[in-house]
Amino acid sequence: MKMIIHIFFIISLLSSISFASVQDFCVADPKGPQSPSGYSCKDPEQVTENDFAFSGLAKAGNTSNIIKAAVTPATAPGFAGTNGLGVSLARLDLAGGGVIPLHTHPGASEALVVIQGTICAGFISSANKVYLKTLNRGDSMVFPQGLLHFQLNSGKGPALAFVAFGSSFPGLQILPFALFANDLPSELVEATTFLSDEEVKKLKGVLGGTN
Amino acid sequence: MKMIIHIFFIISLLSSISFASVQDFCVADPKGPQSPSGYSCKDPEQVTENDFAFSGLAKAGNTSNIIKAAVTPATAPGFAGTNGLGVSLARLDLAGGGVIPLHTHPGASEALVVIQGTICAGFISSANKVYLKTLNRGDSMVFPQGLLHFQLNSGKGPALAFVAFGSSFPGLQILPFALFANDLPSELVEATTFLSDEEVKKLKGVLGGTN
Amino acid sequence: MKMIIHIFFIISLLSSISFASVQDFCVADPKGPQSPSGYSCKDPEQVTENDFAFSGLAKAGNTSNIIKAAVTPATAPGFAGTNGLGVSLARLDLAGGGVIPLHTHPGASEALVVIQGTICAGFISSANKVYLKTLNRGDSMVFPQGLLHFQLNSGKGPALAFVAFGSSFPGLQILPFALFANDLPSELVEATTFLSDEEVKKLKGVLGGTN
Amino acid sequence: MKMIIHIFFIISLLSSISFASVQDFCVADPKGPQSPSGYSCKDPEQVTENDFAFSGLAKAGNTSNIIKAAVTPATAPGFAGTNGLGVSLARLDLAGGGVIPLHTHPGASEALVVIQGTICAGFISSANKVYLKTLNRGDSMVFPQGLLHFQLNSGKGPALAFVAFGSSFPGLQILPFALFANDLPSELVEATTFLSDEEVKKLKGVLGGTN
Amino acid sequence: MKMIIHIFFIISLLSSISFASVQDFCVADPKGPQSPSGYSCKDPEQVTENDFAFSGLAKAGNTSNIIKAAVTPATAPGFAGTNGLGVSLARLDLAGGGVIPLHTHPGASEALVVIQGTICAGFISSANKVYLKTLNRGDSMVFPQGLLHFQLNSGKGPALAFVAFGSSFPGLQILPFALFANDLPSELVEATTFLSDEEVKKLKGVLGGTN
Amino acid sequence: MKMIIHIFFIISLLSSISFASVQDFCVADPKGPQSPSGYSCKDPEQVTENDFAFSGLAKAGNTSNIIKAAVTPATAPGFAGTNGLGVSLARLDLAGGGVIPLHTHPGASEALVVIQGTICAGFISSANKVYLKTLNRGDSMVFPQGLLHFQLNSGKGPALAFVAFGSSFPGLQILPFALFANDLPSELVEATTFLSDEEVKKLKGVLGGTN
Repeated sequence: MKMIIHIFFIISLLSSISFASVQDFCVADPKGPQSPSGYSCKDPEQVTENDFAFSGLAKAGNTSNIIKAAVTPATAPGFAGTNGLGVSLARLDLAGGGVIPLHTHPGASEALVVIQGTICAGFISSANKVYLKTLNRGDSMVFPQGLLHFQLNSGKGPALAFVAFGSSFPGLQILPFALFANDLPSELVEATTFLSDEEVKKLKGVLGGTN
Repeated sequence: MKMIIHIFFIISLLSSISFASVQDFCVADPKGPQSPSGYSCKDPEQVTENDFAFSGLAKAGNTSNIIKAAVTPATAPGFAGTNGLGVSLARLDLAGGGVIPLHTHPGASEALVVIQGTICAGFISSANKVYLKTLNRGDSMVFPQGLLHFQLNSGKGPALAFVAFGSSFPGLQILPFALFANDLPSELVEATTFLSDEEVKKLKGVLGGTN
Repeated sequence: MKMIIHIFFIISLLSSISFASVQDFCVADPKGPQSPSGYSCKDPEQVTENDFAFSGLAKAGNTSNIIKAAVTPATAPGFAGTNGLGVSLARLDLAGGGVIPLHTHPGASEALVVIQGTICAGFISSANKVYLKTLNRGDSMVFPQGLLHFQLNSGKGPALAFVAFGSSFPGLQILPFALFANDLPSELVEATTFLSDEEVKKLKGVLGGTN
Repeated sequence: MKMIIHIFFIISLLSSISFASVQDFCVADPKGPQSPSGYSCKDPEQVTENDFAFSGLAKAGNTSNIIKAAVTPATAPGFAGTNGLGVSLARLDLAGGGVIPLHTHPGASEALVVIQGTICAGFISSANKVYLKTLNRGDSMVFPQGLLHFQLNSGKGPALAFVAFGSSFPGLQILPFALFANDLPSELVEATTFLSDEEVKKLKGVLGGTN
Repeated sequence: MKMIIHIFFIISLLSSISFASVQDFCVADPKGPQSPSGYSCKDPEQVTENDFAFSGLAKAGNTSNIIKAAVTPATAPGFAGTNGLGVSLARLDLAGGGVIPLHTHPGASEALVVIQGTICAGFISSANKVYLKTLNRGDSMVFPQGLLHFQLNSGKGPALAFVAFGSSFPGLQILPFALFANDLPSELVEATTFLSDEEVKKLKGVLGGTN
Repeated sequence: MKMIIHIFFIISLLSSISFASVQDFCVADPKGPQSPSGYSCKDPEQVTENDFAFSGLAKAGNTSNIIKAAVTPATAPGFAGTNGLGVSLARLDLAGGGVIPLHTHPGASEALVVIQGTICAGFISSANKVYLKTLNRGDSMVFPQGLLHFQLNSGKGPALAFVAFGSSFPGLQILPFALFANDLPSELVEATTFLSDEEVKKLKGVLGGTN
């Protein structure tokens, strides 16, 4: 009897003192409209534990490509639960000789931790100064937001690292693709980089660029 | 005549120099999609003064419950005008012996001011240090974002306080309910809190938890 | 003996798993340098519960002045614990006929709750629309950041309200003082407000302005 | 043959390492719902270079009005590409004797650069201190967020300036219009500004206010 | 000769077009004053690549303690380069049966990736709903800011995970230590958690609490 | 007599209701410590109107250099008043054939307005898509934060533009200088850009790089 009253009290209590919790999180609903703050929120009633977990980083990326490397992102909307939380992940696989070319993340700083192998990583500051480190298993390094950086397998076997971003939307601009894998006219690439016409056309050929 | 010209000038002027004002505020439209930044905005044409006012804090909450206390929120979407403004309110009613159990606001710091009675309030820092104060009428106290804190009526009569949050979405996680009023398996509660099986099951019974 | 080992374990554990807690809060040290994010932080070792509490709102402000009203702030550095927490408070006392003149808070939105009496409050949007409410005891209202607003005692007896800001540094620009209580040349006031020379000089006289 | 393989590699590479880029930008879709962070994002597939460019500042605003001045905004949604980017623009045209009356931008600080003519500009701080400068061609000045400021043509010919805001949604509240171009009752204007009934009614007449 | 001129041009160019780069990053100077935004910045002239790298996560933490687990942080000031970058890391070591007790990070959301073993992890929302997952090698999970969560070794051998935070200052409040490892009076613990006096005193004994 | 009383009232009023205004702005004090939020604030008592104005953009930059262009920044600490305000400026001078090479601003989006001449401007998204526009006098364009972009004089005479940033600290990383004007070893440049050894060494020669 006392218990019944208790439970009655609890229910009234919970309903009177619990705030709407919808903004604890905002799991991405890729079908809704996006805003500058991210994806629309999935109906909280339909959110499950699976929205907060992601198995896509468990498997090595395919490194049978020109850079002998792969980047596997764990960001929204693939990893729906990261939407709006201000943190996300990615996995870097580098086969022997593999390299993540110079790139920037326009939307976030990055922190990397080496799980396997040896990685030579570096970034370049606005003052054109180079910060370069050779990282072994367990070593970590940070790359400030928006600055050019790279990771390169400098060991003998394959290398694996996980990286974290301080945003759900870090973005990724890979320099050689930005320069040579689109239709930016060669004369503009040349004028704005000082590269030679021959070099630009050769790399456009390799990377699939036109114009 | 001069007046007519003036008014003509004014109208053209207003239309030429007034910016779109829709982002002065974003009154919550609970029927639209939510984003990480909050509720969708109600059509500005339909916003009235009533969206910016709220009478729900005028009445004492029902304290006939196990904690002899009530928290009445004035946050979005109930208080629609707070959406996106970065500030919201709540009312705390504590009958004699009433207590707001240990809780956190994941999304905001809190500032409290005592209107009636005497309240013993405290919070615990990441360094496990306790900051404890007895507050009388007119006294105020702040509780940093995300830290465990509580308020307890330490006077003779009822106590009343208003609290403010530095966000429209403070959230509210009440410790004993988080632990004992859901289906988190008892052995997990025990393993992650060091509480005894007996204690956990007793409180699950009291607060309606299962498993 | 077991206890001793336990305590040894605990100490090593606490030292190995507790993060530096200094950024739970940043109590204002008014003697250190300020930054765009606020005051320097007081040495955490010297922080006490008194830094998080404030008794300055307990006493009514002095309303024996031209506006028959008083604003008592509970912001940094007076209320040192609010520094960096994104929330702060103030107390409004309005004697009969008292008024808080048109003003803005450049740095925060405001939420107000009436404790005693009747207050007529309003704000004006960028679209020049007026949102006006008469608020009684327990009623609350929000005023979006940076917009002109006012509070006026529209009841018979004195009125009391507490207000909260979504920032530790709301700022306060009171319109008649900004216009008439400084050395902004009268011809500039007139040219930029359309007020008459006579009116400007009269109010400069009343409010202590020069030029 | 080698090239074909390369291109195959590149395609698989691009698909494996490019992140979803949708949050590089969020071009305003004025037909979608708004959120506290701004307009909904246009479908990235339909975004073109025209969304990031704006020709509306090329033409002088119409200064045949009571203030002999015009403000032409380049903010969202007119300049759709600014949505969510945290920066926007406007053009100020001041004919001889022209003035941008005292106003605030509730949502952003402003930086101004003079292109033609001579402008006397100033702002007033929360401490009621006036910061006043005469600016010639090429001179720049900043106006902190939310503070009253003005620009006045103090030269002989017309003046032109461009201004920038640190937000896509600066807002614009023009003081004389906020006071005298709406239905805020005259007695409230008077009580909250100390202006005389005669002055308020005269300016309401001039600027089209009622009540 | 042409080269010399070039280099002269470059030097003048670099000095004329390079912005001060000091705010690319703000490496922590633990001896300077702190602000709400973090530690003071080390003199950029003295910053080296070592400030951006950290080897402290390479070694397993000591799990010979009551929880058979260890948390090794890579946050400021230990990992000086993370200061102000909005991202940081930690390493979790869980021996067989090890557990990271229920805890919150008041200042950031967390993303975890399992490197070795099997981890049962979960968090509790403001609505008291439990989100629980068993994670194997390579699986990742996010924990929204400020919500209670835990990680528990549910496999046979040791487990290892790296976690990332969307802030340089995540904070860490461990529930059983917050409750039982300080001088918060037992009667307050009991009143604010509903735990029995016997249980509280037992755990204060185990964890070193007083009062 | 009445006036004297008034002034007495005003003084007591001002002292009782004016908030500390120091956080209206935070003029850079380059001699104090920096924090992640910017420079230390100059003593407000010593701030003058000159701190908020800047004449450095009035004069054309020196375009007698390899790029026939100059960027003149108006950011902190040179333009001290911008510190912490979230907006800053720069001037672009492009002689005939002048170009601002591909570059990024890691810390802010940019808005540009053309004052004189014709500028071909473009940016590249994370999806490697190019957004390219030819801009004439009065035309404006935005460049999202952190993305590679360029400006090139595509007209006959000199060109002039002003640009604004949505931060006091936009940063500036110029691609060819980042690649070729420092000591980043040539083999790393080559491996991370796909450029040929010959090309890299040639440009290192031109731009002053070593290694």
